[in-house]
Amino acid sequence: MQRKNFILALFMMIMVTSLFAQESVESLGFSLDVVWLFIGAILVFIMQAGFAMVETGLTRAKNATNITMKNVMDFCFGVIMYWMIGWGFMYGKDALGGFIGTDQFFHGPMELNVENGNFYKSWFFQVVFAATSATIVSGAMAERTQFKSYLIYTCFISAFIYPISGHWVWGEGWLANLGFHDFAGSTVVHSVGGWAALIGAMVLGPRIGKYVKNANGHVLIKAFPGHNIPYAALGVLLLFFGWFGFNAASTGVATVGDGGIWSGLNIARVSVTTCLAAAAGAIGALIFSWIWFKKPDCSMTLNGLLAGLVAITAPCAVVSPGASVVIGFIGGVLVVAAVEFIDKVLKIDDPVGASSVHLVCGIFGTIAVGIWGNAPDADVVGLLHGGGFHQLGVQLLGVVSVGAWTAILSLILFLVIKATVGLRVAPKEELMGLDISEHKAEAYTGFQIFSNM
Amino acid sequence: MQRKNFILALFMMIMVTSLFAQESVESLGFSLDVVWLFIGAILVFIMQAGFAMVETGLTRAKNATNITMKNVMDFCFGVIMYWMIGWGFMYGKDALGGFIGTDQFFHGPMELNVENGNFYKSWFFQVVFAATSATIVSGAMAERTQFKSYLIYTCFISAFIYPISGHWVWGEGWLANLGFHDFAGSTVVHSVGGWAALIGAMVLGPRIGKYVKNANGHVLIKAFPGHNIPYAALGVLLLFFGWFGFNAASTGVATVGDGGIWSGLNIARVSVTTCLAAAAGAIGALIFSWIWFKKPDCSMTLNGLLAGLVAITAPCAVVSPGASVVIGFIGGVLVVAAVEFIDKVLKIDDPVGASSVHLVCGIFGTIAVGIWGNAPDADVVGLLHGGGFHQLGVQLLGVVSVGAWTAILSLILFLVIKATVGLRVAPKEELMGLDISEHKAEAYTGFQIFSNM
Amino acid sequence: MQRKNFILALFMMIMVTSLFAQESVESLGFSLDVVWLFIGAILVFIMQAGFAMVETGLTRAKNATNITMKNVMDFCFGVIMYWMIGWGFMYGKDALGGFIGTDQFFHGPMELNVENGNFYKSWFFQVVFAATSATIVSGAMAERTQFKSYLIYTCFISAFIYPISGHWVWGEGWLANLGFHDFAGSTVVHSVGGWAALIGAMVLGPRIGKYVKNANGHVLIKAFPGHNIPYAALGVLLLFFGWFGFNAASTGVATVGDGGIWSGLNIARVSVTTCLAAAAGAIGALIFSWIWFKKPDCSMTLNGLLAGLVAITAPCAVVSPGASVVIGFIGGVLVVAAVEFIDKVLKIDDPVGASSVHLVCGIFGTIAVGIWGNAPDADVVGLLHGGGFHQLGVQLLGVVSVGAWTAILSLILFLVIKATVGLRVAPKEELMGLDISEHKAEAYTGFQIFSNM
Repeated sequence: MQRKNFILALFMMIMVTSLFAQESVESLGFSLDVVWLFIGAILVFIMQAGFAMVETGLTRAKNATNITMKNVMDFCFGVIMYWMIGWGFMYGKDALGGFIGTDQFFHGPMELNVENGNFYKSWFFQVVFAATSATIVSGAMAERTQFKSYLIYTCFISAFIYPISGHWVWGEGWLANLGFHDFAGSTVVHSVGGWAALIGAMVLGPRIGKYVKNANGHVLIKAFPGHNIPYAALGVLLLFFGWFGFNAASTGVATVGDGGIWSGLNIARVSVTTCLAAAAGAIGALIFSWIWFKKPDCSMTLNGLLAGLVAITAPCAVVSPGASVVIGFIGGVLVVAAVEFIDKVLKIDDPVGASSVHLVCGIFGTIAVGIWGNAPDADVVGLLHGGGFHQLGVQLLGVVSVGAWTAILSLILFLVIKATVGLRVAPKEELMGLDISEHKAEAYTGFQIFSNM
Repeated sequence: MQRKNFILALFMMIMVTSLFAQESVESLGFSLDVVWLFIGAILVFIMQAGFAMVETGLTRAKNATNITMKNVMDFCFGVIMYWMIGWGFMYGKDALGGFIGTDQFFHGPMELNVENGNFYKSWFFQVVFAATSATIVSGAMAERTQFKSYLIYTCFISAFIYPISGHWVWGEGWLANLGFHDFAGSTVVHSVGGWAALIGAMVLGPRIGKYVKNANGHVLIKAFPGHNIPYAALGVLLLFFGWFGFNAASTGVATVGDGGIWSGLNIARVSVTTCLAAAAGAIGALIFSWIWFKKPDCSMTLNGLLAGLVAITAPCAVVSPGASVVIGFIGGVLVVAAVEFIDKVLKIDDPVGASSVHLVCGIFGTIAVGIWGNAPDADVVGLLHGGGFHQLGVQLLGVVSVGAWTAILSLILFLVIKATVGLRVAPKEELMGLDISEHKAEAYTGFQIFSNM
Repeated sequence: MQRKNFILALFMMIMVTSLFAQESVESLGFSLDVVWLFIGAILVFIMQAGFAMVETGLTRAKNATNITMKNVMDFCFGVIMYWMIGWGFMYGKDALGGFIGTDQFFHGPMELNVENGNFYKSWFFQVVFAATSATIVSGAMAERTQFKSYLIYTCFISAFIYPISGHWVWGEGWLANLGFHDFAGSTVVHSVGGWAALIGAMVLGPRIGKYVKNANGHVLIKAFPGHNIPYAALGVLLLFFGWFGFNAASTGVATVGDGGIWSGLNIARVSVTTCLAAAAGAIGALIFSWIWFKKPDCSMTLNGLLAGLVAITAPCAVVSPGASVVIGFIGGVLVVAAVEFIDKVLKIDDPVGASSVHLVCGIFGTIAVGIWGNAPDADVVGLLHGGGFHQLGVQLLGVVSVGAWTAILSLILFLVIKATVGLRVAPKEELMGLDISEHKAEAYTGFQIFSNM
């Protein structure tokens, strides 16, 4: 009897110690995951500064205050809208067969418990993605869009357009159920922003003086060079910096994940593919622009780096380093061709090339999953690795459906804004510059600037 | 006998394994906490770049080298002073009933052990807070303060003024014992810097040409617009970026804390409230400035974003997301009113609005804890959640006592500097610009700049 | 019998629980280490933006596009070269008695397992160090080097020069075996870049107008002030920010390390010494330049901050906070003297002082290990702590051997480039500025810039 009691006491003691260790490990894992998502979120956040600097640098000095204000305020309005409405549509209880979320609006209870855990753990990380999608548009619509109209647009994309298609892919919606793979958002974030950018630039029309008919009826295409290349380069490096968080923290966790994937290594591999693709993208654009324009063009090369990043965003976790170099390089070449095509053939005036970078390379990156994907563990095997056309087909379906959703809604939105409050500033204001006409302030007080720029 | 030995051996084996796991968990938790504080520290560090860019952008080109130098050097001198003296006053062995710390000067033994653990783990995180408090002042005193006098001031605030009132709140001093709650430093950091900024600007007097009496004896108030709005916007975004570390890492730990708070979720919630308040602050200032000045004013809006951040700094861990939106929005409106009041009514010339942002909103944020606080776990329940006036009273006591300490000591300090080495440059030097007069160098060699700016 | 079975069942149960906890702890530790290296890598990455801004700010406006392009593209080419070749030379299977690595070229298998763990975990962290070494050179060779020649150089340093000497120290090569201690790369990274910078500037010759003989045969030395001091200051703050990752993450792990060092505390201590040395470096250069030039010189002070950082990079983990202040201060004084010596005595034209910062202070920091080192645990005890001349001798051997390797190979490389594709632009192009001559684009379109700058 005594011995039995002794054994039981021993049993109890050890179990308690052991379970306590278990629980601590779990709790520690939770903390590490929170820290990891925090790191990811702040990195994606600083991309706002990157976008602001790229767009400011690649446009004219007379609109610099306006474009920075738009970049700051689309984040601020986006944050509030995404908290009030967007999060609920994206991650609320699913309805209509994977189409839309339906609760958690104005969410955020005081209690910190398991039930609210997901909201608190993920919201900051999610809102910066929504803001990235929204801010892409400002560059394509730069130098001629009314400030208040831009704010209206940005509220709608953050509250409705982005979260609903986002729900399809990341909110366990219908595209996710079909096996559509977009790891960090080539489609969900970049092509959504890119479609809105292209449609916005189209509805607005070109800047005054951009396409001018000469006496022979021939259209002359003028380039308006940006006013500060170091800003653009700094912006691109900040975007690159933030993109590591964008892609690597899209693992969602730092600890071992559900799918049995060793999350730590996955984080590391995503960093490798992201780094290589960006580098290859810049090199691709540099070489192609050097051949095509007979000079190593700076803004093309910077856009090539971003193109590599957008292209690797979907496939970063399911392709090898070698494939990421190929994907990035193609993205870099593609973006130069796309900028030329949109500018010269479509004659849509996108001052910073946002639609070429985010839409064209977002589509390419999404398709790349179906070609170079090589991750049987994650059920993603592309054409080149014996997966046949299945994954490729699903990827194309995602591209088309998200594209149709965004393009149509953006078109309606911009047309409604145009018909009501107006979308574009008056020609006199555009020539004067939006800094003076909209904000009554110069960006560079005291500096001598050519009046016609 | 044999069986007993077997059981004992079993017991030993299992206990060792189990204890080893325990110890590893603890050691891992320690490492995670160090990494977390490191993340927080580097984020707060980069706020130095944010302040430098905001202050440079919002002042004139002829003083750009001087203001950046001041921002860099107040950090450098602050670091050395805080290591030599400040840390000891703030976190040394308490004396005089919670008034001051008294050891650990010139601290930093080679041995890495439990005893020295707290110093090493926390010092980097603490020094960047001290530096934030110090650097706030440079903006308010910009464009007319002697470089060497500024260095003297910054040594004193980092060595004495900030650490002693900091001891009261964060060093287990008398305010902490009363239940004063200032999670990340609306009072400890921002209002301390803000008081010194206001007093400094007052003692200095306005820039030449700022307030000019016309023939009728009426005072004309001139605005000196900043020379680079993109710098200011970049600076604000860097500050926003860093503020996530400022607030979220003020949890101190990433692992489960002493009070039974699930630290991970707390980190996440602080990120949410910080993000929402900043956004609401910018929107508040934008709307108010749009109504008041009939234009969406850029520098007001940027200051509104910072105002939201300063206001949420104290209450970020004890209010709901909804309350954080309200607090941020009020902060944004308040800062516009405060800038107007200090400029037009008090006629104190604060070139970048530092006292409005850090002092006025620092006070408001501290009080907000007593109004919207809703964290029974942390013993902080404000007026609107049934806590009555208790917490509010304690918060007011903290505001007044830290305010009195800082204001009086700053006043003495600036008056002594003024009476000895002098505080202000000569009028001729001020008109020439401090870059040439103090540093014999232009900031923008080669650029044409209007001579009168 | 029954009781024995009961005991065995109990044993099994507990062992499984306990082992599971063990494994989770190990896996969690792995994840934390990956996150830690990720943090380190992104911080070192953003130093690219720091270098770009410093070099742009300290050179002339007419070369701003060119210098930013070089900074972006040396990273991109470096990344691809280091993946293809450099990693294998540095961390591949050792050959020739610690001289060179020989496998893992074009590395990066899809499988994520223990075998590939080291590559994936470390590659991103390693490649940003390689890129830092490469990018140092652009500043010293600024304003006169052909773009394509610079790209050729950068491929070679990333593929061959840096990885091979890196192998000696960090790849378990012959210097490591001798006990050479270079914690984060004063020699491995900075002096390698610094030697290439000095040799490059020497082979190129000075910028036109830099050293001009007057009628008496006396050489007049002209200073070309930088065109944007706030860029330089922002760049220095970004470098400082990134340096915390550079040094602290060179612990390699956040969890308890092999040598029994409490890694967490080590991370914390490295942050402290890094912060103090940088501050002391800036103060040292400020004071020395104030005495020497009779003014608080801005670019000297900024270089002093960097000098403190370079100097503490090798010894950051083996010296006390007090020693780090001394080392940083000496570094700051040294860099001012070195800039003067290289400019006035050697008459080598290094526009941004890169060789003074990275070579001179890199050598000093490496030697400092042998003087102030005080870490018996890590077998590093310097002269002042009773270690005699042993460590100092080994450090000197490392300085000389890595220096000889880099200087000789750089010299051959630059001479071969000069003799084939050419190294320098034509005088007409140099006077026009490299932005127009190489990239057919201005950096600041619309701004009025003095033609002769």
